[in-house]
Amino acid sequence: MKHATEYLTFETPHRRDYVNITDRVEAFVRESGIQHGLVLVNPMHITAAVYVNDAESGLIQDFDDWLERLAPHEPVSAYRHNVGEDNADAHLKRQLMGHQVVLPITDGRLDLGPWEQVFYAEFDGRRRKRVVLKAIGD
Amino acid sequence: MKHATEYLTFETPHRRDYVNITDRVEAFVRESGIQHGLVLVNPMHITAAVYVNDAESGLIQDFDDWLERLAPHEPVSAYRHNVGEDNADAHLKRQLMGHQVVLPITDGRLDLGPWEQVFYAEFDGRRRKRVVLKAIGD
Amino acid sequence: MKHATEYLTFETPHRRDYVNITDRVEAFVRESGIQHGLVLVNPMHITAAVYVNDAESGLIQDFDDWLERLAPHEPVSAYRHNVGEDNADAHLKRQLMGHQVVLPITDGRLDLGPWEQVFYAEFDGRRRKRVVLKAIGD
Repeated sequence: MKHATEYLTFETPHRRDYVNITDRVEAFVRESGIQHGLVLVNPMHITAAVYVNDAESGLIQDFDDWLERLAPHEPVSAYRHNVGEDNADAHLKRQLMGHQVVLPITDGRLDLGPWEQVFYAEFDGRRRKRVVLKAIGD
Repeated sequence: MKHATEYLTFETPHRRDYVNITDRVEAFVRESGIQHGLVLVNPMHITAAVYVNDAESGLIQDFDDWLERLAPHEPVSAYRHNVGEDNADAHLKRQLMGHQVVLPITDGRLDLGPWEQVFYAEFDGRRRKRVVLKAIGD
Repeated sequence: MKHATEYLTFETPHRRDYVNITDRVEAFVRESGIQHGLVLVNPMHITAAVYVNDAESGLIQDFDDWLERLAPHEPVSAYRHNVGEDNADAHLKRQLMGHQVVLPITDGRLDLGPWEQVFYAEFDGRRRKRVVLKAIGD
């Protein structure tokens, strides 16, 4: 069995940002030398998510509007968590987006469908965050 | 280490459909010969989800009503993605349902609880879609 | 390749409860002897979820309020599933929280970020439920 681990670092300019990390996951898989296996892409912070969806700017704005509607940032005081904090909504938004993904490795490559793109979604940015990549396989 | 890969194909008759694929995942696990491991069940399209829940027709209708309430199809023009498209809601609905699942293999069998059933949820059907099954283990 | 399996049992006192199981997952990983791999933490029941987020009591109350707003328990009769049942909302809530998690094992330890804590979220408690832990790796 082979395994590989890498940590990506992010410090996004805005409170909320959506960063396409597909190339970085693909490079990690290639360099791992794993031919068949699984790769976990997991944010190590609880106000961010990794998700798979479309790299289309209109849809990314739709996601952002929708997340803000279902888990609004304001009023900040509506959340019990927001005592000396203002990021309770970020904890909720990351659950809505599904937190993390596991992706297949086939014939040494990330085995994605035609439109699947891997995104890092930041909901409480302007600080240093990490994502762990962990691959195992043959 | 053993590994196995299979692609399931779907072309559902309606825009939204819920297809129980438990038998197909179980058959895949059995044929893989893996005794202990993990199996990823991942839709390769970004307007569909794989989820685990109850095979009860009332609940499936409840899910459908609820998804339509939280991420409505209409008005189509409310979404920026819908320029020459009408499936923005499908991208959102699939995130609500959690996108994908990873399931345990124990003693050569899919290790499910008494009511756990694996579903393919289609939110933009009437076209050809694929789900990848990827198992690794011993 | 190494593998390990364990079943945790819960019978929570309330309909909805949030139980921090980080210590139990960490102990399981240590005892598995696996140095590099993945661990799946999966509820075997479809009215519960396993999620990763903050162990802060205000936030847990925020989650509970928010889940009740997006997938309310009442009116019970609003759900088609609730014929001789009253737990349809629990099936929906568990999807919102993301159902399950897969976590990395690095150097023999659960590889979590500074605030990542693993929770068992019960949405239809006062009965016996199980969570399966399945680790594979080297």
